[in-house]
Amino acid sequence: MINEQDELTVTERIRICLAEADAKALEVLLDPLTLSDTLREILLLAPEERSALLSLLPADLSAEIIEEAPHELAAELVEALAAPSAAAIFDELDSDTQADVIGEMDDEDAEAILAEMDEDDAADVRRLAAYDEDTAGGLMFAEAFTFAKTDTVGLVLRRFASDDDDFERYRGQHPYILDEGGRPVGVVSLRGLLTAKRSASLTDIMVQPLTVSVDTPLDALRDVFDLHPFLGLPVVEADGTLAGVLSRSAVDTAVLERSESANLKMQGLVGDEVRSMPLWLRSRRRLAWLSANIVLNIIAASVISAYEGTLAAVIAIAVFLPMVSDMSGCSGNQAVAVSMRELSLGLVRPQDLFRVWRKEVLVGLINGLVLGTLIALVAWVWKGNFMLGAVIGTALALNTVIAVSIGGVVPLLLKRTGQDPAVASGPLLTTITDMAGFFLVLSLAALAMPYLV
Amino acid sequence: MINEQDELTVTERIRICLAEADAKALEVLLDPLTLSDTLREILLLAPEERSALLSLLPADLSAEIIEEAPHELAAELVEALAAPSAAAIFDELDSDTQADVIGEMDDEDAEAILAEMDEDDAADVRRLAAYDEDTAGGLMFAEAFTFAKTDTVGLVLRRFASDDDDFERYRGQHPYILDEGGRPVGVVSLRGLLTAKRSASLTDIMVQPLTVSVDTPLDALRDVFDLHPFLGLPVVEADGTLAGVLSRSAVDTAVLERSESANLKMQGLVGDEVRSMPLWLRSRRRLAWLSANIVLNIIAASVISAYEGTLAAVIAIAVFLPMVSDMSGCSGNQAVAVSMRELSLGLVRPQDLFRVWRKEVLVGLINGLVLGTLIALVAWVWKGNFMLGAVIGTALALNTVIAVSIGGVVPLLLKRTGQDPAVASGPLLTTITDMAGFFLVLSLAALAMPYLV
Repeated sequence: MINEQDELTVTERIRICLAEADAKALEVLLDPLTLSDTLREILLLAPEERSALLSLLPADLSAEIIEEAPHELAAELVEALAAPSAAAIFDELDSDTQADVIGEMDDEDAEAILAEMDEDDAADVRRLAAYDEDTAGGLMFAEAFTFAKTDTVGLVLRRFASDDDDFERYRGQHPYILDEGGRPVGVVSLRGLLTAKRSASLTDIMVQPLTVSVDTPLDALRDVFDLHPFLGLPVVEADGTLAGVLSRSAVDTAVLERSESANLKMQGLVGDEVRSMPLWLRSRRRLAWLSANIVLNIIAASVISAYEGTLAAVIAIAVFLPMVSDMSGCSGNQAVAVSMRELSLGLVRPQDLFRVWRKEVLVGLINGLVLGTLIALVAWVWKGNFMLGAVIGTALALNTVIAVSIGGVVPLLLKRTGQDPAVASGPLLTTITDMAGFFLVLSLAALAMPYLV
Repeated sequence: MINEQDELTVTERIRICLAEADAKALEVLLDPLTLSDTLREILLLAPEERSALLSLLPADLSAEIIEEAPHELAAELVEALAAPSAAAIFDELDSDTQADVIGEMDDEDAEAILAEMDEDDAADVRRLAAYDEDTAGGLMFAEAFTFAKTDTVGLVLRRFASDDDDFERYRGQHPYILDEGGRPVGVVSLRGLLTAKRSASLTDIMVQPLTVSVDTPLDALRDVFDLHPFLGLPVVEADGTLAGVLSRSAVDTAVLERSESANLKMQGLVGDEVRSMPLWLRSRRRLAWLSANIVLNIIAASVISAYEGTLAAVIAIAVFLPMVSDMSGCSGNQAVAVSMRELSLGLVRPQDLFRVWRKEVLVGLINGLVLGTLIALVAWVWKGNFMLGAVIGTALALNTVIAVSIGGVVPLLLKRTGQDPAVASGPLLTTITDMAGFFLVLSLAALAMPYLV
């Protein structure tokens, strides 16, 4: 059937499969696509078609597609499904993904799915969802590969042999040995397993495991995995009992997601917006930040308002006001970006304020001199007034020094006061450089007035 | 000695250890610090002190510190060392890090280090450094865990047992079986090894390995690791011979680094700037983009210049010109950020231009209406002129629609034409929204002139 329709788009073919409820044809159609291509195709469909498709596909394939989506989008896709379909797909997700997706859902939808799940699994999800997202508890998965102190090497080998999935399913975790209280007291290396006798007790070859606590934050986890070559680590509750297993790749992924969402926050985008979200939600979230920005803009503009007399006398200045504030804003934002990166790499700490400021002042001086000279020449030639060029050039040079040196330290200052530098650095810097830029241009112009008119 | 100096800072203690060339005390001092803290302490030192410290520490510890640094900084630290020290530290780095760091160095310094290295290792580094950074070849490491088709399970187990480092040293790679021509023809799973007889031939339990080619790009590699649970994959040359091994975590790290450097590029920062770089280099790199920006600013400002007459008649408008352009610039940048993210997640493709445009126009309409009304009220109350409020409000509303809809598609358009959206989206969008904003405010004001003066 599908072969005869070469001229149809993938979307159209998907619609035919859905209309005929032909799961096999749908699978054949999606097979050559990567997961992200498949996800994109799904987003091209209407919401009810998306649900029909995810319900029609085998649950494990739908689960893979949903794992590919950012959590907010994943929750949206799952919420739109009927509870039994949703639960079947949910069962196939890793426990950490389950918890993340449940965390993004309405309580009602979440409860409907948890009610359809196996009781133990549902309890695991509830437990994982309760931890903060960027901690070991929020990033770990619940399934551990555990043994008792009385078990032998042979038992581990039999568990490996009997397991349907390969070892990699455990994402590199080792067999952990728990004491009677459920506390991890040993870990056996693969080399140990491979070279020991089958009859050997695990306690003979086990070593003390390195553990992390459920509330260890992401940065500390990154340090632990940097220092140690392990692919996974056992995570323990405050009482020392095993809570789950944290994989190196979960930490890598969380660091990536945090960096990407910092990028969105800088533009005032809260949460991780994707275009499939409802229009009103997207619009409202963006507006919150923009309306706060209006207030900052009014403050900056009031500087211009105070100098309307000067401006009226030399109207050409109005041409250069936005240029000076925009150019110094750009210079300042470069310094902000370098500081944000050095903060995230751990190359500077909030305490290094003065050192950063000193380094940036020098860059600001050089770049201010160059840019100021350039714009002075432009203003002089364009408007035929040397003094106008001097005023604009001097203002840009000074304002570049201000913007660059303040831009470098603003993220550190915000971090120091417990604010999120990604959210507030940009608006704060822009307001300062706008005000300073308008003030410098207009007050210098007022001083030089006799030569300007 | 150190115990008596509790009031000294870490930096001062480091200086004492360096002065006394006391390697042991230095190690004790640095031991409680994380790698990123250690790196930060090193950056607080003068360049010659940094070199002294890295030469004084055991080479494997210095190597760990250098691995923690971004490649450009790592190259800078290594270049400053005497060639024998540099080579000793270099020997301890993974082959993929060696290649990355060599790639950032001057040819002369690179050759000096390669000349001190073991010939085979140096050849590996040269080979790895020749591949593009964000391909399988550029991300793989050279050390593979390989066996011949005639080898037995017992031999693999003996290799495990004899190896000084644990299995994790191989970052999760499996034993690969090569044919006589050096082509990977099989891979054995750990489960296979654990459950087979020692005398079994590897060919009995091996399966066909999934391989990637040296020139596979990062996005495709991410897809492969998304689809398959492997921790590592063999990388092959065009002729099918084994070139190296690619680990999942190398791909994760590369994706993170790309996302972070896209963030810097948006502010016109080429390469990955860190503050320890020479002042002139940092200044010059930032200026290149800023001076191009001046030209765009002049184009936008020329719109104001064309309306100087209107502006002179209603000078209050000058107060709102930067507000309108700045506010719509912010709205547009939000749309740019969402598109950049959806592009990097693979949720949109450059072809989805029209769909994205339609989605953004709606957000632009709502937000334009809200922001336009807000600013209209502000202008009316502030300047006591209802018509002025109407002009400014209408201009902002229209310009928000323009900014948001263009902001959403600019990254897709740039990508489609082969440009890097991270570099050009911002300046392009700002120029368009500035021009449109100035034009809307001033032309509407010109129309409404009788009611404004």
